Amino acid sequence: MSDLPSRIRINEEGPREGFQIESPSIATSRKIALIDALSDTGLRQIQVVSFVPPKNVPGMADADEVVAGFTPRPGVSYTALWLNERGLERALRSQHKLDLFGSISATMSPAFLRRNQNRSVEEDFAAQRAMLATYRARGLPVRKAVIAAAFGCNFEGAIAPAAVLDVIQRLLDLAEEAQVTLEDLTLADTMAWATPLAVQRLIGLVRERFPDLRLSLHLHDTRGMGIANAWAGLQMGVDSFDGTVAGLGGCPFAAHSGAAGNVCTEDLVFLCHEIGIETGIDLDKLLEVAMLAEDIVGHPLPGSVKGGGSLTRFRAGANRTATTTS
Amino acid sequence: MSDLPSRIRINEEGPREGFQIESPSIATSRKIALIDALSDTGLRQIQVVSFVPPKNVPGMADADEVVAGFTPRPGVSYTALWLNERGLERALRSQHKLDLFGSISATMSPAFLRRNQNRSVEEDFAAQRAMLATYRARGLPVRKAVIAAAFGCNFEGAIAPAAVLDVIQRLLDLAEEAQVTLEDLTLADTMAWATPLAVQRLIGLVRERFPDLRLSLHLHDTRGMGIANAWAGLQMGVDSFDGTVAGLGGCPFAAHSGAAGNVCTEDLVFLCHEIGIETGIDLDKLLEVAMLAEDIVGHPLPGSVKGGGSLTRFRAGANRTATTTS
Repeated sequence: MSDLPSRIRINEEGPREGFQIESPSIATSRKIALIDALSDTGLRQIQVVSFVPPKNVPGMADADEVVAGFTPRPGVSYTALWLNERGLERALRSQHKLDLFGSISATMSPAFLRRNQNRSVEEDFAAQRAMLATYRARGLPVRKAVIAAAFGCNFEGAIAPAAVLDVIQRLLDLAEEAQVTLEDLTLADTMAWATPLAVQRLIGLVRERFPDLRLSLHLHDTRGMGIANAWAGLQMGVDSFDGTVAGLGGCPFAAHSGAAGNVCTEDLVFLCHEIGIETGIDLDKLLEVAMLAEDIVGHPLPGSVKGGGSLTRFRAGANRTATTTS
Repeated sequence: MSDLPSRIRINEEGPREGFQIESPSIATSRKIALIDALSDTGLRQIQVVSFVPPKNVPGMADADEVVAGFTPRPGVSYTALWLNERGLERALRSQHKLDLFGSISATMSPAFLRRNQNRSVEEDFAAQRAMLATYRARGLPVRKAVIAAAFGCNFEGAIAPAAVLDVIQRLLDLAEEAQVTLEDLTLADTMAWATPLAVQRLIGLVRERFPDLRLSLHLHDTRGMGIANAWAGLQMGVDSFDGTVAGLGGCPFAAHSGAAGNVCTEDLVFLCHEIGIETGIDLDKLLEVAMLAEDIVGHPLPGSVKGGGSLTRFRAGANRTATTTS
């Protein structure tokens, strides 16, 4: 209990995760409207687009227009995802609106890497080395590393924590070779294999071996464990989470029709506020944005609190009189 | 970690919770089909109906026919819910097929009690005393007590754990007066106010004061905290949970359109099996029943694993070869 953080930061990835997988026919103006609405909730970091080839991800074909169109709010960091130098070039053209920083990644699943990026593991490490050189040449800071499929993979099965530790070390070695200090590490449960017990175990091992890394969790909710896994992370003192409003998203490469989006941001905010952890986010505003997200995609999204409602209006028996006399 | 039970029992309440709130036009034969399918999953306890007035709960108007129609499987305990002596009379007429035992209850919310059963708190305690006398007269064993709205209430706000302890004591006093030993206590989060922290706190306090009671959790999932709350219970050593297949249910009296059903049985089974806790249930069979439940009610139900799938087929890289060469 005593390891619970007093405050967490949430990196909202709804626009990127969501429009990457939703119908490409959604109007650019509505994507922009979602980003602008999110900007008004108290979120401090929003990943707005991915710069990836339109033929692979048609929903991101208008990424440049989306970035051009949203209204940045002071104090909010807007980020983008890219997977190679061509994507980075596009991001750099919008750098006046984006908070650009380099990150490197590794995937615990060779098969997923092959499907997702058509690379072998060694080709992928070489690509990370090349990206580090590119970031250096561009003068971009490198802030974080991401380990995808850190808990398990639909193609590889369960992933051994020891293997994750080895891959983290390889990324740190690459960073050191490039004279870069990695501060943040995101453990991504890309295909929703994590359980609260696995989260506790892996976080414990990673922290023991790499005590200086700040850990983030990126938890997909395909099997309904998202909030429980986040709670397990909170119990271990993790204070940084990715989330998507209304649970937007999924993974187009997981070859799995049931693949769900990230842990739902407003459900995570609800949990945090109820147990006294600050997020800086206005939950009721965020719930309105969750309903907007549903309206934009045109189908129900998985988040629960947008249906169940926050407890604000029920607190302290506010409606007791009205209901007991009815 | 060390408090995790090695095995839990799950009391499946899907037929009762679900058909209580779903359209009353669902055919009796389909309700029976769901119960028969559940009987074949390894579940050992299934609550099949509630004997309540049809004018209040039209979906239970055919409760007698449902009980008459299902095929009992040896080793499975089939239970029913009733709220008063008239309901008990109906249950007794089907006692050859039902595992009948008495239970007493209290509700932490006077306003909810008034809406739900049109009683004051004192009238409710008096009713419990009368039911204990009835059970004694009928020779029915009394097995458990249930505390409704144990964590919070939409009409009363948050519920103080100390108040819950007092009410448990009152129920134990009633039982003692009736010369009955209560063994099981269910803490019900009727209106989905619980958080994992609140579960840990209340379970800890109850166990400290009443170490001889076996605790069960009845967790509604209206705000998406169900599985996280169950995990918190497991961490506290709780080994008995109510659940509903596919997350069937809701509370017709919660005056809250977003009120969701119980924690989803197959999601809970998935969690348990993944972390090495036995349930005795065949998850893949249960997932088929979850899809049957959706077909019967005619709309999507909230459970996640029925969409995301279990991990059985992905284990040990079973499909690695096929996918890496594709």
